[in-house]
Amino acid sequence: MSNPSSAQSVVTAAMLAIGDELLSGRTKDKNIGHLADVLTMSGIDLKEVRIVADEEDAIVEALNALRSRYDYVFTSGGIGPTHDDITADAVSVAFGLPCEHDAEALRILGDMYRAREMEFTDARKRMARMPKGAAHIANPVSVAPGFIIGNVYVMAGVPQVFQAMLDNVMPTLRTGAKVMSQAVRSPYGEGDIGTPLTAIQKAHPETSIGSYPKYDGQRFSTEIVVRARDAGVLKAAADAVAAMIEAIGQEKRLAAGKGDATA
Amino acid sequence: MSNPSSAQSVVTAAMLAIGDELLSGRTKDKNIGHLADVLTMSGIDLKEVRIVADEEDAIVEALNALRSRYDYVFTSGGIGPTHDDITADAVSVAFGLPCEHDAEALRILGDMYRAREMEFTDARKRMARMPKGAAHIANPVSVAPGFIIGNVYVMAGVPQVFQAMLDNVMPTLRTGAKVMSQAVRSPYGEGDIGTPLTAIQKAHPETSIGSYPKYDGQRFSTEIVVRARDAGVLKAAADAVAAMIEAIGQEKRLAAGKGDATA
Repeated sequence: MSNPSSAQSVVTAAMLAIGDELLSGRTKDKNIGHLADVLTMSGIDLKEVRIVADEEDAIVEALNALRSRYDYVFTSGGIGPTHDDITADAVSVAFGLPCEHDAEALRILGDMYRAREMEFTDARKRMARMPKGAAHIANPVSVAPGFIIGNVYVMAGVPQVFQAMLDNVMPTLRTGAKVMSQAVRSPYGEGDIGTPLTAIQKAHPETSIGSYPKYDGQRFSTEIVVRARDAGVLKAAADAVAAMIEAIGQEKRLAAGKGDATA
Repeated sequence: MSNPSSAQSVVTAAMLAIGDELLSGRTKDKNIGHLADVLTMSGIDLKEVRIVADEEDAIVEALNALRSRYDYVFTSGGIGPTHDDITADAVSVAFGLPCEHDAEALRILGDMYRAREMEFTDARKRMARMPKGAAHIANPVSVAPGFIIGNVYVMAGVPQVFQAMLDNVMPTLRTGAKVMSQAVRSPYGEGDIGTPLTAIQKAHPETSIGSYPKYDGQRFSTEIVVRARDAGVLKAAADAVAAMIEAIGQEKRLAAGKGDATA
């Protein structure tokens, strides 16, 4: 259940993480979790994530599926200067636009390399390529910009750069009503709480109640997370969950007491 | 580039991670990276990953797209006893099969709860539900089995359980020719190596050469990873990369020396 009903506006997003290294296991993605945190805090619902290889067809197909379906799409990876950085080309293909060296991007990159007395190689110039008409996403870490085309935000895969670019774009996004959440810890596993929790979810249809099992190597406990876009609705459901856990505890203590008495 | 050409067999896979908590940021996925590592070591190419919410339509659509396209699909999450655990239902819908309480699963779960003197609640019985005709994936951690239907392997989201289930299924899978890899560290950023690396990739078409920038807060370095299914092919390309890095270093030392001389 991830769609707490509400009259308030909902803004949706998807992420497309691009890179062979994520699929081979060589790199463990850090951008998905970060984007999820930032969007959730801002009232934008991340609805889907895809990870694809550095292959044009795969990128184009995934991007076209996601951008038609969600308000925003954020991509990570594949915008560096090497031969396997094909995101700018693939995004251009997806939009049916030419992929060109952007004059402003060439200027700021050229200035940087001149200042550093480094050669502005053809490889480095690749980082100025983007679909014709794209807007820049400033890169305070390493200068080479990301870009925005339509509802697609193309950002770097290196986490420090991805995060800095995301910081730059977040204030420009339309955000929805924030989903508030309240976590209730249950020392009992899902088997104990499943049936009453289902009843609570049914009685509080404007909330989304998630149940997340934890396993410490010996026993399961559960974190129950209630989400809603209205504070009163949230509190009523969270209170019901807390009362349910208290009742299970009481029942277990009674059962244990009875066990002792008959032993 | 993720498809080193080879006459040897290629086996492909996709992963579908299911759970609102992954999209809200509350849980940071640990299963994708683990699966990627295990498949890569076994010679199975992980080609795509999707993360979707606990919503039947989203799960069904993603699963049908992935299972028709890849040799194997591995899912994580949504097979517990609570109302938001809808993976068994969604997988059944995707295959057009009834979702039923499996007799053998009921038996092993019933035995466990009896042994623990715990009630076998309706919620716990949910964990025995699977598409009619599915085979079990044993769960040595917490008993409730995953299941296999067609080319889809349905496993738990809790990492310890996911990993244990994966250990059980790996020996049963058809594997392809392993992709071997060799990493070459470059102290230079991608801008320095991009052009010569493109030439090396062109000269070694049976390899896949990836370039992964690292940023330490001050400067970029690069890890270059050469992949191939043949050891000789791999070595030739990796040697060319190492020679290229050595040449860049020599060039830089010469340039620095000249700088000193004219200062």
